[in-house]
This record gives sequence, structure tokens and C-alpha cells, in this order.
Amino acid sequence: MLAAPLRRGSFGLQTIALARRSYIEIANLLHERQLRGKISQSRTLPNRRNYHSRPPLRQQCRSIEEVSTVLGQYKSSVEFPSATHSFTDLLQNANSGDTVIIHGYLGHRADLSKKLSFVRITDTTMRQNIQIISSAKENAHQKLKSISANSPVAIRGTIQTKKGSTGEKERSDIEKIDSLEIQLEDIWPLNEFPKDIIMTPETVFPAEYRYLQLRSDRSLREALQFRSNARRICREELENCSPPFAEIETPLLFKSTPEGAREFLVPTRRKGFAYALPQSPQQYKQILMASGIPRYYQFARCFRDEDLRADRQPEFTQLDLEMSFATGEDVMTIIERVIRKLWSTLLDETPASGPFKRLSYQDAMSRFGSDKPDTRFGMEITRLDYVLPIDLVQKISPLTSPIVEAFKLPCEENDPAKTLDFITRFLDSPAGAAFNNNPDGGPGIFVYDAKKPLHGLMPFGFEAAERVEEILEPDHGDLIVLQARKNVPFAGGSTPLGDLRKALHWEAVKSDIKDAPTGFDFLWIVDFPLFSPTNENEPGQGGAAGLSSTHHPFTAPKSAADVDLLLTDPAAAVADHYDLVVNGVELGGGSRRIHDARVQEIVFREILQMPASRIADFSHLLEALRAGCPPHAGIALGFDRLIAVMLGKESVRDVIAFPKTGKGEDVMVGSPSEMSEELLATYHLRLRQ
Amino acid sequence: MLAAPLRRGSFGLQTIALARRSYIEIANLLHERQLRGKISQSRTLPNRRNYHSRPPLRQQCRSIEEVSTVLGQYKSSVEFPSATHSFTDLLQNANSGDTVIIHGYLGHRADLSKKLSFVRITDTTMRQNIQIISSAKENAHQKLKSISANSPVAIRGTIQTKKGSTGEKERSDIEKIDSLEIQLEDIWPLNEFPKDIIMTPETVFPAEYRYLQLRSDRSLREALQFRSNARRICREELENCSPPFAEIETPLLFKSTPEGAREFLVPTRRKGFAYALPQSPQQYKQILMASGIPRYYQFARCFRDEDLRADRQPEFTQLDLEMSFATGEDVMTIIERVIRKLWSTLLDETPASGPFKRLSYQDAMSRFGSDKPDTRFGMEITRLDYVLPIDLVQKISPLTSPIVEAFKLPCEENDPAKTLDFITRFLDSPAGAAFNNNPDGGPGIFVYDAKKPLHGLMPFGFEAAERVEEILEPDHGDLIVLQARKNVPFAGGSTPLGDLRKALHWEAVKSDIKDAPTGFDFLWIVDFPLFSPTNENEPGQGGAAGLSSTHHPFTAPKSAADVDLLLTDPAAAVADHYDLVVNGVELGGGSRRIHDARVQEIVFREILQMPASRIADFSHLLEALRAGCPPHAGIALGFDRLIAVMLGKESVRDVIAFPKTGKGEDVMVGSPSEMSEELLATYHLRLRQ
Repeated sequence: MLAAPLRRGSFGLQTIALARRSYIEIANLLHERQLRGKISQSRTLPNRRNYHSRPPLRQQCRSIEEVSTVLGQYKSSVEFPSATHSFTDLLQNANSGDTVIIHGYLGHRADLSKKLSFVRITDTTMRQNIQIISSAKENAHQKLKSISANSPVAIRGTIQTKKGSTGEKERSDIEKIDSLEIQLEDIWPLNEFPKDIIMTPETVFPAEYRYLQLRSDRSLREALQFRSNARRICREELENCSPPFAEIETPLLFKSTPEGAREFLVPTRRKGFAYALPQSPQQYKQILMASGIPRYYQFARCFRDEDLRADRQPEFTQLDLEMSFATGEDVMTIIERVIRKLWSTLLDETPASGPFKRLSYQDAMSRFGSDKPDTRFGMEITRLDYVLPIDLVQKISPLTSPIVEAFKLPCEENDPAKTLDFITRFLDSPAGAAFNNNPDGGPGIFVYDAKKPLHGLMPFGFEAAERVEEILEPDHGDLIVLQARKNVPFAGGSTPLGDLRKALHWEAVKSDIKDAPTGFDFLWIVDFPLFSPTNENEPGQGGAAGLSSTHHPFTAPKSAADVDLLLTDPAAAVADHYDLVVNGVELGGGSRRIHDARVQEIVFREILQMPASRIADFSHLLEALRAGCPPHAGIALGFDRLIAVMLGKESVRDVIAFPKTGKGEDVMVGSPSEMSEELLATYHLRLRQ
Repeated sequence: MLAAPLRRGSFGLQTIALARRSYIEIANLLHERQLRGKISQSRTLPNRRNYHSRPPLRQQCRSIEEVSTVLGQYKSSVEFPSATHSFTDLLQNANSGDTVIIHGYLGHRADLSKKLSFVRITDTTMRQNIQIISSAKENAHQKLKSISANSPVAIRGTIQTKKGSTGEKERSDIEKIDSLEIQLEDIWPLNEFPKDIIMTPETVFPAEYRYLQLRSDRSLREALQFRSNARRICREELENCSPPFAEIETPLLFKSTPEGAREFLVPTRRKGFAYALPQSPQQYKQILMASGIPRYYQFARCFRDEDLRADRQPEFTQLDLEMSFATGEDVMTIIERVIRKLWSTLLDETPASGPFKRLSYQDAMSRFGSDKPDTRFGMEITRLDYVLPIDLVQKISPLTSPIVEAFKLPCEENDPAKTLDFITRFLDSPAGAAFNNNPDGGPGIFVYDAKKPLHGLMPFGFEAAERVEEILEPDHGDLIVLQARKNVPFAGGSTPLGDLRKALHWEAVKSDIKDAPTGFDFLWIVDFPLFSPTNENEPGQGGAAGLSSTHHPFTAPKSAADVDLLLTDPAAAVADHYDLVVNGVELGGGSRRIHDARVQEIVFREILQMPASRIADFSHLLEALRAGCPPHAGIALGFDRLIAVMLGKESVRDVIAFPKTGKGEDVMVGSPSEMSEELLATYHLRLRQ
């Protein structure tokens, strides 16, 4: 009676593997259908075609008559009356019988009879609407009937006490003002909302029509207002420090330096010369520290010409700051103050008092398999290889002497069959494929079952099973997951087991096996290694040492002992580098910087082994440090992501007014666009063949 | 006894012309010598060479011993103690006998004896310094002696009541704290200020050493702080409006559109495709208005790849805003409120109450010869040709039927000889050359002299002289300047006579003939023509009509009558366009926008006659306007210039942390820099031969 370990790969029976393959194919098919279903669901517009092929621009001139007609209509919208009241004014100051002029967007008209119509008008901020009553005794009645819903209008009318409601269903996100009505006297159409655009509460507009997305979705508009408020709070908090942080703008037309990421170029009309857009204001802000500026901050636009990973934008905003005569501790203190203020003011939720939790990089990687762990839901990872029998390890992984780690997923229902069903479905889903196909061996899956011999841990053997029970303390029905990895130092990011921990947790939440974690879990990840093995996919600093800076080449070693390691074993040196992580999302990172020009040069030349020409690109920074620059430290928070986390948005696109797609395109304006020969020639450039 | 009219050119005697030429040459020579003198004066550094050829970067690796020594020194600066007190804390909370640790920059040491030294330490904000007393009984005494002035240090010591002053002369811009002294107990050098950099209050550092400019010049650092404060006040004022302005960031990776100026390109790795950096957020902010955002603002970075005119930067900052359901009047009201708040808070000077003065473009051009006039110093221009005898006009100008205008420079001393001397010197100086060489004729100069026949106005003839006296009401010794120009409509900018008015005014101030005007003269220039004749030097919109938009192609006509003119005489249509001018400096401009897609298209196609391909570049904007966009208006204030005007700085470079030179270079970092073949290849580009 062996518990069938469900590990994918060599462990499973061939028939199961076959079944799974086809099952995965079916699952993929279903997944695709679901996706298609969703897309077509979002295509509720009868005139959808209009939205995928824009109405072609006119190629001919209009006739004089046409122009004359258009201009005639336009004239009336040029000379529209000023509003006498905002909606707030109406509620506070208007009395029954007052004549008022208001501005706003017209709602859908309800004609009670030929002689009586009701229509609500939404204010210019699109937050509130108010009832307009139009009767045929006014000339405006016919004018009203000619204006389509959603058009901007000016209205003159008389305030009345409320007589009743039309019962018209308005967009649910707009508040109805019920205490007043306005008897229509005159109306000015200010533009026409076209009849071929259907805008209902259910309409989902594609990215090409960002303005219609924004106009039809109050939560999107409010995210932008929230973002504006968050900026204000960050500023206030930083400017109220003593000494205050000064907001200082640094150039965006910078130059290319081997800092780490690929930069966008900006060619100039001086042949062969270009600016580069900064990946961060790092060098300029350090130079500010050498300039006697004690504290700097900036909401800095940054640019990286990277292959866009999930939810990355080619341009993004950082809350960037730097302090002189400071260490990492000082920076973390300031950031904790800013974060507390943001959360308490905007979310009415104050993070627990006292400093934020800290976790070393090594602990984060070994306990959670990630350098940006969500520590709210347990499932901590434990190293097990020293208790496992060699034959089990061999079954789990083709590696020689791997590290084997495990975590436990507690399953509240204590039903091994349900647990088995859950994990089978997950691993057979497309999401499970990456884990199954791990070349170091797929995950080893065990369901703890009090009714089975050795509680379902038979493959461990008696001795190891007992140790595993002691270590993981599983309950009946809990899931135990094993995973092997090469016995090498962590290389940043996450381990496959760390990824599986996260994926299984969220799958368990979706499947109602676990409750979703709540609240915000603020965490500093500290003690990163100063250098990491060079990664083929990132440009790094182009040194010959096989090492790249983990953060950036300006990061200082943490202690005097780490300074010593620079000479003997730089790969072992720990950095004064700290990342702020909230609920598994990295909000940003900072470091203390090397403030001694000679040490910075040693890092460039002796440790990273950068060629002299690339070191020369940093000569301005070396010169500035040499001019008696004080010690300094700083941080940059990814502001787009910070706002997305605060609002619980899945994508930064929901908190950016005009985001780019995954391909770096603004599909609304059509950027990037093709360069003309003429433009290229202006910059002495031609395309390569 | 004719008053010799001093007009340059055909009017003067040939000998005078010859004398003048050589005089100009001598003046040029002297001017150059003065410049050279100034430069060498600024080169007070004994080791100046260091500043013009930076110490070459090391080409070889250091020996292990060297590295070891450097790292050993660095270690001590890595583990420096935190400050127990800021200087403010010291003054407020420290008592005699307290042990404190402070951070700051060391001053120049004064050794009273081998056993006793005094040195002041400047705080981290470089605003205050305090006396440190070091005696040989402490080990720190020798350490102190090894640290060079201007080095950053941490100091531990005991607070003492003040015993006396060393009388050491410190930089005059740092306040001395006199109530406390600190008896030195220990000192930590945090970096070394190099001996080859001499920094005295007189040292003027070149732009390559911007960090030393900033570090040695408190007024420069304070300008940056002032700028940060001004940003805060603008934000507060806008965010406290009802409804509030929301700060919304718009993309900097945009696309090239024929809006008016040349844009910088940002090539992408998609072959042949590029982003463009925006010349302003104009299109995105209008799309925000179409998106239901009622009020937007942003401190926007803007880019123009223009041949840099005086004091222009290729990147600059605008305070940019836009309001829906608004006209120009609403925008002007908001801006007046912001300006009032800025001046009253930061300059303690409240502009006169009531709306700012307004002057139509036509009045500004005809009364002051400039579309950004300084109206504080009189010297208004009057048209005179209708009173002048034809032979005088012919002497003044080779043009047929020109317009002749004049102004009067009142000369307080009422001494015609002095006036004559003043104007002769001016016109013979290099600054006068441009006026003399005007192909429409140079200026006609008359000195009003009660002792001469016809008061020195003989060339006018009896009748005209009388009329001129009636019109200009000159006093004895006043200067009268005549200038002809073609009889065509104004084409923006300034007229030669407008330029001469300004130049002579400032020359008169320099020569103590007039007092310098004081205060701030806020002025709206309004009623600009919607279109102007196309100017060869600016790209404009590339239309075929010979017209370009005066402001930009999105500007709305002012009234219904101007809408009518679009059809019949577009060049005569007036725009709802307003520029804010202070003391002759244009701080920015705005307009009401065309919010009707069809009218915008008529402007593009029928009026400007842009080709269809270029109109297509604006299709996103036309689409957004078509989707029921409300009327809207906005403005952009040049923030760099605003701060420069507030602080009375001559150049925006003095209010930008890292400005570019007139050639668009950041000489400190060396941008723009040469593109490598590898980088060009990444973007599928090569240089043209």
C-alpha cells in the first residue's frame, strides 16, 4: 500500500504521463476557449468594427458648404455661458427658484410624453448627477431632444424641490443628487457624443481607446487621483523632514554609461553623437551629494530599453532620494515614515508600529525561495537532503548531491483525497508544466495520510519519514512538496520551489483550500551579496571578471569586514543594500554608495575588471567623489508599482494614465512610429540593410 | 545751425563713417580684452591645469599593496558614528558638558600653538558653522591635523560655553554659531578633500566642475531649494482648487507629430521605428480632457531639438495645466492666483490686487515693438509717418512708403551734449551695429535742444517739427529716435525699434541716465493672430498654405466672428491665446483649444493645407475630440524662467542643477557622447557617409 507519489517525470507511470499529456492539451484548449470567451464577452459593442479599424481620415477637402456648416455649429459652442454653480455649490448655496447655469455631461433622456422629458446631467468631475426636467413650453425642449447622451452641455434652469424620480438606471458609479432638480430653460450643446460609440456600464474598450476607458471607468480615473494624492503625501513627508529633502530635477538627456541596463539613445544633429535616457538619476544624485546638497528627492522618470518582462514599462516613475552623511539605516527610517504616512492617510490602515521586519537575502532565499517573499502565508521551506535516503534523492533529481528542500501546504479540510485532487489538477494544468519540466527534476509530491502506512511517507523509509514528520509536523491531508536544486549559492530572483510555493498558495486560495492572506506585510530584504555571477541576459557592467554588481556598481560593502573581502573574496562580500518588499512585491531598493573615488575605481577596474574605456564613462562621478564627497545612501521606490499595490491593482497599467503595452507600444497614439528618411538624414543616420 | 542728426548710414559724413569703423574695431578689441581679463580673473586656481585636463584615469591595475592601503583607509569611513545632534539640535537641546557627535565639513585650521588648534566645522546643510577646540592632550589632536580643510568628518566632543573667537575668516555666506564651542575628543575623516583643489570664496569653477560650483556657492544651492519651494507652492495652490487639479504624468516616449518644433528621436530595436520626446504634453493633456479628467497639471519635462537661442535648454520644465469646460478667462484666473501666491509667499511681495493688465498683441507690437514688452519704463512708440515730410522719410529709409515710428528717451539731466555723447557711444559700440546695419535704414537720432533752431528738429521742417513736439512732448536734452519699417502686418517677436527701445533703456540705466525700473510688471498679451506667415527657420506644421499656427495648431479662434473668418480670411482671425509676460520676459503661454474634431481637421487640411500623411499623425487626437470632448483651455509656464525671474537671475542655468551649455552639452558628464558601432547596430542604424 504505497502512497503514489505524484511527482512528475521519471517517477510517474508511463500511462499516466501519456494521459497527462493529452490532459494538458485538453486543458490548454479549454484555457484558450476561456480566453476567447472573455475577449468576445468584452466585445459588446454593436459597432465594434469602428473600434478596430478607425474611420479612415478624409482624403479630400470639404466643400465650402460643408466647412460652413461645421463652423456654424462650432460657433455656438465657442460662446457658451460660464457656470454659475458647481454641483457642490448647488448643494450648498442654491435655493428653490434660483436660476443657475451648470456644465456637465448629458445622460440618457427618458421621454414621459411628447411634452415632458427627464434627463440627468453628470457634473464635470463625473462624480454626481442631477435631474433635469424639460417641458415643451420651453424652446429648449426641442434642442434637448436633438442632443445625444454623453455629450458635454451647458444648461440654464431653475432650481426646484424634488418632485420624484424617473427611475432611470444610470451608471452605478455616479452618485445621484436627490435633493434638487432643475427645470430646463436653455441648453447649449458643447460637442456631440457620436452615435456610433456605444458606452454602457458593461462596455469594455480596447487600449486604442484609452480615453473611452478612462471616461467610462470611474475607478480608473480615481486611481489617477489617488496617485496624485500619494505624490503629495510623499512630498509633504520628505519636505517636512529636518533637514528637508529638496526636490531637484536632474537631466533626462544624459549619456550612455555601463550602469547595468540598456539605455535608449537620443541621437543629436552632431554627427555620431547621442544623448542617452537615464535608467535612473543615480549618478546625478550622487554628484548632488558631492555638491553639498544634504538631502535630495525627485519623482524621476526612468527609462530602460529591456525586453519587457511581466508588467514592466519602458518608461516608469521612481520616488528617488539620497541623503548625505547617511547609511542604509537612515534611509530605511525615512522610507518607513513615508510608507506609514501613505498607508495611514490614504488607506486608513497603519502598519504595525516599530521598524519593519528585516530578512537577510540568504534567509529569504532559503526560507521562502525568493528575494521578494510574501511571508504572510507560512509554507516555509526547509532543507531536507541531509535526512533523505539517497535512493529517494536519486528518484527526485538527476543531479549529483543536490540540495533538496521541502515545504508543507496545510489543507484545512484534512481530506487526503481532496488534497490529491487539488495538486493533480494544478500540476496537470498549464501552470504546472514549468515545474514538471524542471531539468533538475520535477517536484516530489506527498499527501500526509494518517490512514496509510508511514502516513503516506513510505518512499522516505522509516527513519527519514520520522524525521520529516518531526521537522514539518504535517496534519492529516496536508501536502508535502520536495524539490531538488544544484548545490550552488543562490543567484538572486527565486528558486523553482519558491515559485511553486507561491503558485500553490494562490491556487489553494482560488480553490478555497486556504483563506487569502490579508493586510500588508512590509519587509526589508537586506545583506545582499555585493556581486553576483554575470547573467548572460543582462548587459551588466561589461567587466571581464564573471561578476556583476547585484544592485549597481556604486553599492558600498556593508561593514569593515566586507571591505576586507573585496581584496580576498569579493563574491562573499555583503552589500549595504536593502529592498523594500510588500506582500511579495518588490517596491524598490536602495543602498549605501561607495563615496571614495579610489575604492569606486578599484571596484570598476580590479573587481569587475571593466575595460578602461568604460571606466572613463564614469570619470565625472569619480571626479565628484574625489572632491571630498561625504558618505551617502539612498533608495528608489517604483512609484507605479507602489500605487498598484496600495490599490490592489494587478497591473501597473491600471495606475498609469497612458501606459504602454507589453511590446512597448502606445497603441492609442501609435508610438513608436516609423522614421522617415528625412528625419534619419537630419541625424546623419540610415537604416542598416 | 542744424542739429546734426546722428543717424548711421547714408546720413552721416564719410569721414565719420570711417572713424566709426575704426572706432568699432577698437571697441571690439577692448571688449575682447575685457572678456579675456574676466576669464583669467576667474582662473585664480594655482592648479588650474587640473581643471582643464582632468587627471587621466589610471590605465593599469593597482598593486595588491596599494589596494590594501586604500581599502584600509576606506574601512574607517564605512563605520562612522551616527550624529547625536544636528546643528539645530545643538542650539536647542545641548547643554554645557554634554558629549555630542556631529557631522559636517571641516574648515581651515588655525594652530595657536603646537598644543592648541581651532577649527570651525560647517554643518551638513552648509549653512552654519561652529568652533571646535582641539588640544594636544587628546589623541584626536594629531588626527585633526592630518585632515585637510573641506573634508567631511564626524566629530565627538564636549559642549562648552564660548571662551572666545579665533577671528578666522570663514566663507562669508556661512553663519557662525557663537553661543557654543565643542572641545574635540575624537574625529573620523569620512573622505579627503584633495589638496590640488583650491576652494576660496573667490574661486570661480568652470562648468565641468558643477559640483564645485554648487558646493562653493551658497546662492546656487539656495536657488535649487527656492525652486523646490516654488514647486510646492504651485502644487498646493492647484490641488486646493475646487475641483482640484490632479497631477498626472504623461508619456515621454511619444511619437513625432508636426506640432511645430523639431523633436528628438528615440530609436527602438524594432527596425526603422522610433519614439519621439515630446515638445510638450499638449496632445496627451487634451486627450485627458476627452477622458473625463476635469483638471490636470504636471511639472512636465519638455524637449526641443532646436538651434539653441539665448538661454534655451534642449530639455526644460513646464508647469503645464489644462481645464475642461473652460475658456482662456478661467485659465488666466487660476494662473493669477498661483503667481500671487508664489510672489507673496516666497518674495514677500504681493502683486497689485485685481486682474493682471492685458494688452492686445497689436497694441504691444505698435506701442512697444515687442510681443513681450517691459512696460515699466515708458518710451512708448508712436507712429509718425503721416506727419513727416517725404524727403525726411527718404533720408531715413530706402523703403517706399514705409511706416515710421518713434519714441522718446527722457534724459533727466536736460543736457543735450550729454545725450549726444550717450547715443554716440551706444551706436558706435558693437551693440549698436545691428541697428545701424538694418537694411530698412538705421535709426534716425535727434536730440531735443531748446537752444537750437526748431529745438534741434530742423530736418522735420517747421510743420512736422511742431506736430512731433505735440505728440512726443520732449524736454530739453531728451532723445528722439525714428525708425522706418516695411508697411506690412507685424510678424511676431519684436521690431528693430522695439529692440532699440529696450537696448537704449538698459544702456541709459547702466549710464545712470535713468533709474533701473523696480518691481514686477505682470501682463497678459492677448488677441494674437491665429495664424502667422510661415517662417523659414521653424518647421511649423508643414502645410502648403504659407501660414503656420502662431501658438500651435490646436488653438481655438477667440469669438464667433473669428470662427467666421476661418472661412473668409483666416490670417485675420484672432486666437483665444494668452501669454504671461513679466518685466519683458515671457513666462509662458496658453490657449483655449479647438475641441471639435471636424474644426480641428478643417484647420489641418483646409487652412494650413497639411498633407494627409501628416494629418494622420494626429488621428489619435482627432478621435479623442470626436468622442464628445468638452471645451477646454490650458497653459504652460516655463518653470526654469519663472524661477530665474523670481530670483533676478540672468540665466536659467543658475536655477537648474545640471544645465546644458549653449551647444546643448553637459560638459561635466560629457553628454552627448559618441555612439559606438555596437550601439548603432542594436538599433539597426549606421552613420551616413
